[in-house]
Amino acid sequence: MHKSASSSAFGPGGLDIAQSFFKPIHGASPPPTTSRNTKISVIGVGNVGMAIAQTILTQHLADEIALVDVNADKLRGEMLDLQHAAAFLPRTTISSSVDYSVTGDSDLVIVTAGARQIPGESRLNLLQRNLALFSKIIPPLSARSPDAILLIVSNPVDVLTYVAWKLSGFPANRVIGSGTNLDSSRFRFLIADHLNVNAQDVQAYIMGEHGDSSVALWSSISVGGVPILSFLERQQIAYEKQTLENIHKEVIQGAYEVIGLKGYTSWAIGYSVANLARSILRDQHRVHPVSVLAKGLYGIDGDDVFLSLPTQLGRSGVLGVTNLNLSDEESQRLQKSALTILEVQRQLGI
Amino acid sequence: MHKSASSSAFGPGGLDIAQSFFKPIHGASPPPTTSRNTKISVIGVGNVGMAIAQTILTQHLADEIALVDVNADKLRGEMLDLQHAAAFLPRTTISSSVDYSVTGDSDLVIVTAGARQIPGESRLNLLQRNLALFSKIIPPLSARSPDAILLIVSNPVDVLTYVAWKLSGFPANRVIGSGTNLDSSRFRFLIADHLNVNAQDVQAYIMGEHGDSSVALWSSISVGGVPILSFLERQQIAYEKQTLENIHKEVIQGAYEVIGLKGYTSWAIGYSVANLARSILRDQHRVHPVSVLAKGLYGIDGDDVFLSLPTQLGRSGVLGVTNLNLSDEESQRLQKSALTILEVQRQLGI
Amino acid sequence: MHKSASSSAFGPGGLDIAQSFFKPIHGASPPPTTSRNTKISVIGVGNVGMAIAQTILTQHLADEIALVDVNADKLRGEMLDLQHAAAFLPRTTISSSVDYSVTGDSDLVIVTAGARQIPGESRLNLLQRNLALFSKIIPPLSARSPDAILLIVSNPVDVLTYVAWKLSGFPANRVIGSGTNLDSSRFRFLIADHLNVNAQDVQAYIMGEHGDSSVALWSSISVGGVPILSFLERQQIAYEKQTLENIHKEVIQGAYEVIGLKGYTSWAIGYSVANLARSILRDQHRVHPVSVLAKGLYGIDGDDVFLSLPTQLGRSGVLGVTNLNLSDEESQRLQKSALTILEVQRQLGI
Amino acid sequence: MHKSASSSAFGPGGLDIAQSFFKPIHGASPPPTTSRNTKISVIGVGNVGMAIAQTILTQHLADEIALVDVNADKLRGEMLDLQHAAAFLPRTTISSSVDYSVTGDSDLVIVTAGARQIPGESRLNLLQRNLALFSKIIPPLSARSPDAILLIVSNPVDVLTYVAWKLSGFPANRVIGSGTNLDSSRFRFLIADHLNVNAQDVQAYIMGEHGDSSVALWSSISVGGVPILSFLERQQIAYEKQTLENIHKEVIQGAYEVIGLKGYTSWAIGYSVANLARSILRDQHRVHPVSVLAKGLYGIDGDDVFLSLPTQLGRSGVLGVTNLNLSDEESQRLQKSALTILEVQRQLGI
Repeated sequence: MHKSASSSAFGPGGLDIAQSFFKPIHGASPPPTTSRNTKISVIGVGNVGMAIAQTILTQHLADEIALVDVNADKLRGEMLDLQHAAAFLPRTTISSSVDYSVTGDSDLVIVTAGARQIPGESRLNLLQRNLALFSKIIPPLSARSPDAILLIVSNPVDVLTYVAWKLSGFPANRVIGSGTNLDSSRFRFLIADHLNVNAQDVQAYIMGEHGDSSVALWSSISVGGVPILSFLERQQIAYEKQTLENIHKEVIQGAYEVIGLKGYTSWAIGYSVANLARSILRDQHRVHPVSVLAKGLYGIDGDDVFLSLPTQLGRSGVLGVTNLNLSDEESQRLQKSALTILEVQRQLGI
Repeated sequence: MHKSASSSAFGPGGLDIAQSFFKPIHGASPPPTTSRNTKISVIGVGNVGMAIAQTILTQHLADEIALVDVNADKLRGEMLDLQHAAAFLPRTTISSSVDYSVTGDSDLVIVTAGARQIPGESRLNLLQRNLALFSKIIPPLSARSPDAILLIVSNPVDVLTYVAWKLSGFPANRVIGSGTNLDSSRFRFLIADHLNVNAQDVQAYIMGEHGDSSVALWSSISVGGVPILSFLERQQIAYEKQTLENIHKEVIQGAYEVIGLKGYTSWAIGYSVANLARSILRDQHRVHPVSVLAKGLYGIDGDDVFLSLPTQLGRSGVLGVTNLNLSDEESQRLQKSALTILEVQRQLGI
Repeated sequence: MHKSASSSAFGPGGLDIAQSFFKPIHGASPPPTTSRNTKISVIGVGNVGMAIAQTILTQHLADEIALVDVNADKLRGEMLDLQHAAAFLPRTTISSSVDYSVTGDSDLVIVTAGARQIPGESRLNLLQRNLALFSKIIPPLSARSPDAILLIVSNPVDVLTYVAWKLSGFPANRVIGSGTNLDSSRFRFLIADHLNVNAQDVQAYIMGEHGDSSVALWSSISVGGVPILSFLERQQIAYEKQTLENIHKEVIQGAYEVIGLKGYTSWAIGYSVANLARSILRDQHRVHPVSVLAKGLYGIDGDDVFLSLPTQLGRSGVLGVTNLNLSDEESQRLQKSALTILEVQRQLGI
Repeated sequence: MHKSASSSAFGPGGLDIAQSFFKPIHGASPPPTTSRNTKISVIGVGNVGMAIAQTILTQHLADEIALVDVNADKLRGEMLDLQHAAAFLPRTTISSSVDYSVTGDSDLVIVTAGARQIPGESRLNLLQRNLALFSKIIPPLSARSPDAILLIVSNPVDVLTYVAWKLSGFPANRVIGSGTNLDSSRFRFLIADHLNVNAQDVQAYIMGEHGDSSVALWSSISVGGVPILSFLERQQIAYEKQTLENIHKEVIQGAYEVIGLKGYTSWAIGYSVANLARSILRDQHRVHPVSVLAKGLYGIDGDDVFLSLPTQLGRSGVLGVTNLNLSDEESQRLQKSALTILEVQRQLGI
């Protein structure tokens, strides 16, 4: 673990200074074990993992951040680059290692690691490699932080969150996928940008699979307290169903468009996951569309499947799922989205 | 305890809504006991206590804030006034009670309660009444939060921090007085205002008793990295010793002046104590001039006495005391300040 | 104006230090006049004015804060108390004066000054005294900051916002009353507290007069995207109209209850007004229920009247009023609320 | 300019909704021209430019951010990626264009663009290409924002800041190079990490060239108010001069090490420049080691040269340079550092 970057420079005499610089007071005793710092681990320091780690650092959501990756050089470079900003930030301990022991006693473990598609590789083959990767990653993480919340960001996020749940042995409320939290922000941005309002005044959800079968909940969009569909109706503004479909399509295309233009996505997923981290670690009881065990909810019965539902998050993870009123069409689309994910799980034999 | 303000309005049917609004997911289990929220209790909801509580709330330093006072009406009024701002703030649970049980399992307990001087009452008599008050307050607080840090703000802060340490049975690193942290900020403001610099670029300490015998450390003032005394010397700016004394006097008079003008102090002590709370709870390892057990440090030997020294604070309270180089005169003044406090303790027979 | 608190202590030699401490660089020129700092003035430094000023300071919403009051001692005491916290805050220039010239070139002027009810005084008489007060306050304020936004907090807020508009000669988009922004937060807190959700996930408005004739918009409440009334219907939860009325009554009673218990309200109104200041000065385009010129909107025709409607706020003040769909009953209540305010204006002969 | 991302999806009917969603109030008038938003432009959207833009966005330092780059695809991808986070952030208008007109009326223009070294290319040739680049970039930027502050981050930063000053025709107080602000943070981190203190309690400067000839000011380092060199002396801790040199070397190597490990630097320079942006735009009067016109200061006479000195920054840019007391050796090293930069300028014939 590269914790202290300066040991070499200060040399062997260094220790003396630190010891004589502060004097202990009389009658001091070690801290009670209950006085724990808040610790977040980020697994994978690619563009997504680092955008998450840096946003968490900027927002001071943790007292300790641990980074893990298989690429030791990249890992140390990223750690040093964050540490060098120490004078501009509240004090946060940043450590890194290729070994999972650095993640011990985390409150939140965020997994962004994933295999990259090899040109010509089938989607199923890629998934099988990710499955193999997770079977190596998740058990040591859950063993070293048995009380943590697991937050999965790697794609395909719904299947991999299910896999992480199975591998961790954690109760379902402590395994969450980032799901459509970012898709919903894109959706809210598109609506807000168009109406020239603040996106935080727009209520709008994308549910279901984080992918092509995701479901836009038109019936529950409201802007500054105004339900949009009934507003359009009342104003007698003709609204082609095709227009709505186009907006949804633009949301789905959002990630592909950014990847096509800059090669990857990073900033928005970084803010999105930091937003979830805050709701969880600061016990905010806010509602987010994230991937959770959906069995028995919204007519999704039968097999275990994770997909995004409007979920209340707090210090113990999932507190509950909001009881939204879906239109019949929305309901059917959501169930179809579940089947899409289950079909993949069946192909994988999990 | 007044936790839910709305129970009456929603009536008996209320429960039904809450239960049906969110659906639990399958396989959820209660949170592990390690997943604790951060809790701060504030004892005394006068102007000082409330400025502290409100600043802590604004800065989101705690997930739970508990208020205690003997005046049940005032207490409930203050709690409601903070709760009514819920829509403008991150979610924080605010509770209040005349009973100490509401403070259970606090991470930090801030004591602002104190007897008020009766016209004609001697200083010693007032102190004896405060002693009696603390003997009723501290034991139930320390019993209910055995792992907490105790932060004493009530005046005379040095004597009462000593009293709280004795009554709590806590190790000395977990009992701290707000001391001269605010005096030092006033000192830094006066210097910064005069030089038209940012007060955060001014390093300057007031040490010793929080009171008339406090000690201004002229030898260690620096502004933007420039040591002031040697700068003046180098620039051949004649500086009357009397001028320095006047600035120190203005710092000491600061509190009296504000009390004379508005009747009490509140805002600055609120920010000062919230600043300490952040360093402690977020493990910041920052150096603050606060009241700590000074025995054996800076030539203060013999009896147990608390007074302000530059102290590094973290999650376990006092981490150590900085080894400043005092001039002979500063050193003598500091020891004299210690004797002033000890003399009071002797008069009280403690 | 008490701008520099330290001039006396540093004495006449002080100037020399400041001048020699920093050296100018070659070729420096004064800043272009476009480089203006953001300035907020707060008129009235009672409990409400100071809670507003302190929250604005904590949130660093302005580079300069100017305070005005008729009580010179209280005024200077409050200014010093804020200044003493300089070391804990970003640099903000805080000035104060009994003279309005200190407010010159403000971006936002917040008026909290108001006459206090004399025991036995009729409501009408109190209002006439406030009218007289405003005719002395508003003209010098608007003359000295001709481009400012005026934000009126003094009660009765709707009538006094109308008065301020008339006296200032400002266009209507630059005169706003704090209105029911706080009532709506109380409303959201009561609902959130009951359902154990984050109040920021609750959309709910109180509209109309800030007072007994205010209107709770039951039809547009939603929690985490779920419209509450249709949810109750769907869940077949019988909801007595009386229960809804009780919640509204509790909101209206909120201020009275706090005043009854602690003697005044301060914290929540402080957060509420700082929230409006942020939306205005940082051009947030957020929707807030505030008091605006309602003529021609929501069926309110005829005379000029200010009352709270869901209003989009930005750097130029009122950007527009949201086109909510009210139920017939809500619509009638809103128009009745307008008549209540107009009746007062008629009695005052304005 | 890609301002509205959603125009296509909402279709031609879109306009109708926006217009009917908000109703104007009576008597509204356009905002006075003084009510300007704060605008920052970032030129170059590589790793450095984007880390800066994202940190500025997170910290809400501007109401508008404009991005410029020659690579239109990368540019649009980065803009969209930031915009997609709208729901998690305060409202900030983000625009981008390959055309400089998008930067019009900026308060602060941050230049990160620079030519990349071609394998085998001499350092001088690279510099000449950067010179050519700046002669195309700076004139249109300064013409479109004649009152802006120019903040140069491109390397070699000292020479290019001089070039930008010449090309812009701006007064010297409005042209600043990021200089050794980040080197100084690395220096403070190394010391803080070693002593286990908060880096914000460490005062330490690197001055001179941002490069191999930079100067570590050992004589003015203090930690929590304790001057380090005299502390070591007093504690009779033998300190080899070589050890100090090693720490300085580690600071200089910091950037090279990160580049060697991860391929580039980004996070720390992002925080460093956002830190400068805050001091400038929020008029913080803080002291930063940044590159300024040094002529006539610290014994640097003769030709115009920019290098890092401890500089007080505010809304009009450079407010002054701190009058530090250097040791003879430090003074000589600083003057040698100036000569190093001047030699490069002579080679370039500028």
